[in-house]
Amino acid sequence: MGSDLFRDPAQPLSVRTDDLLSRLTLREKVGQLNQRLPSWRLWSRAGDSFAFAPEFDDEIARWGGLGAINSIHRADAWSGRHWGNGVGPAESAELVAAAQERIVAGSRFGIPALVPEEAGHGHQALGSRLLPMHIAAAATWRPDLLEEAAAETAAEVRARGANLVQAPGLDLLRDPRWGRSEETFGEDPLLASEFTRALVRGLSSQPGLGVQLKHFAAQGAGLGGRNGTGAPIGRRELAEIHLPAARAGVEAGAASFMAAYNDIDGVPCIADEWLLTRLLRDEWGFDGVVMADMFAIDRLTRYLPDQIEAARLALRAGVDLSNCDEAYTAIEAGVEAGRIPEEWVDRACRRVLSLKIRLGLLDPPAPLPEFRPASPALDLVTAGPVLLQNDGVLPLAPGSRLAVVGPNGDDVAALLGDYVPPLRPGEGTSVLAGLRARYADVTFEAGCDLRAPVEGGLDRAAALAAAADVTVLVVGSSSARSYDDDFAENGAAAVGPRRAHATSGEGYDLADVKLPAAQRELAERVAATGTPVVAVVVSGRPLGIGRLAELCSAVLYAWYPGPEGGQATAALLSGEREPTGRLPVSLPRSSGTLPVAYNQRLETVARYIDAEASPLFPFGAGCGYATFALGAANVTGRYPDVGVTAELANRSDRSGTTVVQLYGRATGQAVVPRQGVLLGHAHVTLAAGAAAPVTVAVSPLALPGLGSPQSGELELWLSLDGPGRPAEPLRVPLGPSA
Amino acid sequence: MGSDLFRDPAQPLSVRTDDLLSRLTLREKVGQLNQRLPSWRLWSRAGDSFAFAPEFDDEIARWGGLGAINSIHRADAWSGRHWGNGVGPAESAELVAAAQERIVAGSRFGIPALVPEEAGHGHQALGSRLLPMHIAAAATWRPDLLEEAAAETAAEVRARGANLVQAPGLDLLRDPRWGRSEETFGEDPLLASEFTRALVRGLSSQPGLGVQLKHFAAQGAGLGGRNGTGAPIGRRELAEIHLPAARAGVEAGAASFMAAYNDIDGVPCIADEWLLTRLLRDEWGFDGVVMADMFAIDRLTRYLPDQIEAARLALRAGVDLSNCDEAYTAIEAGVEAGRIPEEWVDRACRRVLSLKIRLGLLDPPAPLPEFRPASPALDLVTAGPVLLQNDGVLPLAPGSRLAVVGPNGDDVAALLGDYVPPLRPGEGTSVLAGLRARYADVTFEAGCDLRAPVEGGLDRAAALAAAADVTVLVVGSSSARSYDDDFAENGAAAVGPRRAHATSGEGYDLADVKLPAAQRELAERVAATGTPVVAVVVSGRPLGIGRLAELCSAVLYAWYPGPEGGQATAALLSGEREPTGRLPVSLPRSSGTLPVAYNQRLETVARYIDAEASPLFPFGAGCGYATFALGAANVTGRYPDVGVTAELANRSDRSGTTVVQLYGRATGQAVVPRQGVLLGHAHVTLAAGAAAPVTVAVSPLALPGLGSPQSGELELWLSLDGPGRPAEPLRVPLGPSA
Repeated sequence: MGSDLFRDPAQPLSVRTDDLLSRLTLREKVGQLNQRLPSWRLWSRAGDSFAFAPEFDDEIARWGGLGAINSIHRADAWSGRHWGNGVGPAESAELVAAAQERIVAGSRFGIPALVPEEAGHGHQALGSRLLPMHIAAAATWRPDLLEEAAAETAAEVRARGANLVQAPGLDLLRDPRWGRSEETFGEDPLLASEFTRALVRGLSSQPGLGVQLKHFAAQGAGLGGRNGTGAPIGRRELAEIHLPAARAGVEAGAASFMAAYNDIDGVPCIADEWLLTRLLRDEWGFDGVVMADMFAIDRLTRYLPDQIEAARLALRAGVDLSNCDEAYTAIEAGVEAGRIPEEWVDRACRRVLSLKIRLGLLDPPAPLPEFRPASPALDLVTAGPVLLQNDGVLPLAPGSRLAVVGPNGDDVAALLGDYVPPLRPGEGTSVLAGLRARYADVTFEAGCDLRAPVEGGLDRAAALAAAADVTVLVVGSSSARSYDDDFAENGAAAVGPRRAHATSGEGYDLADVKLPAAQRELAERVAATGTPVVAVVVSGRPLGIGRLAELCSAVLYAWYPGPEGGQATAALLSGEREPTGRLPVSLPRSSGTLPVAYNQRLETVARYIDAEASPLFPFGAGCGYATFALGAANVTGRYPDVGVTAELANRSDRSGTTVVQLYGRATGQAVVPRQGVLLGHAHVTLAAGAAAPVTVAVSPLALPGLGSPQSGELELWLSLDGPGRPAEPLRVPLGPSA
Repeated sequence: MGSDLFRDPAQPLSVRTDDLLSRLTLREKVGQLNQRLPSWRLWSRAGDSFAFAPEFDDEIARWGGLGAINSIHRADAWSGRHWGNGVGPAESAELVAAAQERIVAGSRFGIPALVPEEAGHGHQALGSRLLPMHIAAAATWRPDLLEEAAAETAAEVRARGANLVQAPGLDLLRDPRWGRSEETFGEDPLLASEFTRALVRGLSSQPGLGVQLKHFAAQGAGLGGRNGTGAPIGRRELAEIHLPAARAGVEAGAASFMAAYNDIDGVPCIADEWLLTRLLRDEWGFDGVVMADMFAIDRLTRYLPDQIEAARLALRAGVDLSNCDEAYTAIEAGVEAGRIPEEWVDRACRRVLSLKIRLGLLDPPAPLPEFRPASPALDLVTAGPVLLQNDGVLPLAPGSRLAVVGPNGDDVAALLGDYVPPLRPGEGTSVLAGLRARYADVTFEAGCDLRAPVEGGLDRAAALAAAADVTVLVVGSSSARSYDDDFAENGAAAVGPRRAHATSGEGYDLADVKLPAAQRELAERVAATGTPVVAVVVSGRPLGIGRLAELCSAVLYAWYPGPEGGQATAALLSGEREPTGRLPVSLPRSSGTLPVAYNQRLETVARYIDAEASPLFPFGAGCGYATFALGAANVTGRYPDVGVTAELANRSDRSGTTVVQLYGRATGQAVVPRQGVLLGHAHVTLAAGAAAPVTVAVSPLALPGLGSPQSGELELWLSLDGPGRPAEPLRVPLGPSA
């Protein structure tokens, strides 16, 4: 074994990798680039152990090993795995070990597989802890809370035997019609960068566990909010809005990127050599593995002559690892036919092997940590909901008689979002349950379904509302899949004439983002009783809630807060916790006014003839129970190490927390400035009546969003409620003369 | 005078230009780059002659001449000029001559001004003939008809003393929310290129008259359909969709381009050296004048330190002539301060002078042609309306009792579109008048306003409908401005809380493209009577007419057909003329499904959960009264000189005309193909029951829209009703091996 350089941890990574690579046949190398089988379909229980489908062994034998086996723990409606037939925390590691054992045994050099697992907001596996959807996490404006929670997720995932954890974060929310809005960190590149960095740091805190970020790149710019549509955007829009989070991910140590389905100005990401090689690797210095999204390489054959050509383009671009495609199995034939240079295979295989070695897969096995269930991330969960308006009805008075009304009022599944496993029976707290834990007199009536009336529902809801002190109207969306739903081959909803319960999530794109008519009617009816209405909007995407806001005394936008969402909501409505969430995305008035992202470039028109062009609530909006005011602001430092200081005063008679936001705009160049760019932010807590100076620095992560200007002036201003620019912002010179 | 080379027609243009340029002072040169004053404000009547405002003489004296005087004939709500105070055909040439006389007298070398006039669809001057809006012209798919009509417009314009004629055509209709949709040739680059070429050829058919095309470039890609918004698109989208028409305009001999308000991926067109110089001049070989849109250079000062900087960037980019800006008057100070190189001034001035010499302004004056009113372009007008559906109710039976209903039923102004002068009293034919000229029993009731109910209107309309054989429901939009409206400084509508009558046109952007509620209610009421309803949609933009189409037996989309629109509509409804129009743009179901252009790239999703993603009626849709069928198709020739031949049969018992459409898709490259690209088209007329082979060739003008592919395959297919691709298209090899 002295000659097995690749197994010697004392050798440099490159030496180990090259040694291993040099021993592999073409077929073995191609095998390392493939993960053709959806892993959750491959196993079944066999007494106390696990049995594997024959095709699994065939696949291993075919390639003399395997590159990766994806999502073996996956449990959800699409995989069909649940508590009755899935794998729980106690057995997970054993399942993975059993699979790896077969792979290692089938490989001449004993190379295990990468084991990637979905963990966008908690591991998508039975019994792991769920976190709020990314959009809810972003609404906290507290990446530190996500980093902490993600570290606990990493411990769970690692304990269950995975070595690569997949999470979204790179997609910007530019069109709320998109069903995957909930998987994003919102519309702002700074927030997306900060949260992506936090996610990578937290998830990669476990030895032996790498992080794969998705999707690279610009999937959020898809036309019409239609899933996976092309993004005909320019390089500047790409660089300023869609790339900063990815770059922050590289710098935070992401081990892998998933190439996106969409094209950018015509070139599919999966075949984009500029994107995957020249930018990501050559310019940014990324040295990990690029994996395809599911079946994305096969999709190229819609307009390429054969699988070899699809594989050739993807391999040339820099895709190292396939994801269920047939096309990458054609690489061997492509090399033999002289159509694909073997050096390209070597390049990709080297990266896969290098990652495996870095993750310790070729080292003597170390014991996995024991699975310990993570505790609910209550600070994170509670910090996400955004209080958009409040006429004083909140906090709810102790002893209030409450009528909880609305289709999401007693629905735990609606709190969770997409990419979730089934909960344990009885797990999770609905809004109703959360309020009942705090208030003695709480009635409930759904009143309607998400998109349809319910016989007698309006009357029953109105009756309860009329008899209550306050109505808590819980409306919005749900991404809860049914085990009876139809799915596309990649797990997205296959939306057909048959309407599923869900109204959001992958595949659930929406033409009209207004709150559905059935829910609007419910709001009208309960408001008409005269009882004050507090709206709680449970939704993964921005909805058009203009009429709702007119009707209601208070609106709390709760996003998808996760299974503890009911507790958190109740803690916020009761005043036990201060609402500190702020919008990570602009809320539009209607689909017809899209796009409304605050960081578009300057425009000269303010309205349509039938609507204001502005959002209903801007990015950054949100309030708490204390009220704050900012004094005169001053610049500190010089660009780019620049900040703004001002006196912040708590003008209320209660202690509270607010989010001080620093915005800017680069002027003086032949480029139209964006209306505003978030440059930094700070949570500040002050006692009743207290005041203190606050400094918010320009974050280096925000500079790409400004276009990394080299000359001109930077306008700066502080705000407590979004990007509105004062008549006289502060000004700082940019560039060399600064 | 022997030394006045610049006046010698025998000298080469460059010699004349350089000679004149060399004699001018800096101030005189800067004067040639300016047209600061809106000309229609400068003159008034003085007895039998004209008087000019002192500021006109001051401006001439300030610069020792003037570059241009824009739109001196303009008559419309914004200019405030009408038949009571404007200038009619008989006096126009005299007015221009009087103005030029002052300019020449104030110039040391007697240099007259450029006299640009708006003539988008007829000269925007009292007493000139109006043509259908561009969108209606494009719906004819007959550029030859526009060329013919434009030549008559050119004769009118020239006879009235102008030397430069301005027309839109370069803006593609990618978002029907945009109020200027009506000024475009639709969503397709081939149609836009063909019609732009026809327009340039027609308008420049008069000696001494040059054509200025607007707007350059990509204004149709503005975000959210908001007027003048930035277009964050990529270079491939720009090249394939937005640039082909401009290039066709250069090749057809356009003398001038107007730079657009919008930015492209951040860089404002007005300051885009790549666009205005490297592409337009260096690559395409354009050697005319680039003029700014109104106040566009001044707008740069929103984010530039001063006017000199705005002028510097525009001059550097290649803008030769300002349009009402103050900024270009700062060029002199900029040169003196060393901030602007005088060579840049010379370059721009050389282009202005060169154009003046080319147009004959420095030659001995030639007599203008006499003004002869052009005849109505009835062939063009009648060929535009698109029959979208017809259950057999059309053609209307002779002697039918008709109820004409709807807000556009008896409104000539609604037929005209934006950028129009007032008609003479009694001029023009409404739909009602057109039908009354053919049918004896025709009742009328508006029933509602465009956007509001009218007291008792629904009842009255329903009563008329109930008593008729057929209801003709005339709905849609209107771009008719009122002399009481508010306007922005550039003449766009200043849309405020006060609602004007108009619902379309510049400044009238619309969030919700659905037919307004008041008109939908009217449709429901008249349809409920049981009398068959024929809808005539008068509109400059695609409207969401899904419910209307369900309710009506036939739908004729009439666009803005111009003052003879009523005659044309009646000729079509009665069957005197065959409807041969085809959609030049996809009709969306709603704003929430935008964008819906047929030539987007391939997508993998077909629907939103609440709507089909497809258009309600696709690009290319439309029918006549005869029915046609295509037989098996064959390829003729080799790419790019390739076409498709098939047998076309008239399967009906009446003679008729149809539009054979050739679509294609380039495959085999690392670029996602567009779903289809219009490559050619042909109008074919066949007698009842006749059949004939038809060949449609790929137009060279269509190749940019395909991405000018060098390899792979071209899929080809013929169609009579839009871009739907058959399962087995024809295939032609592309590139060198072909």
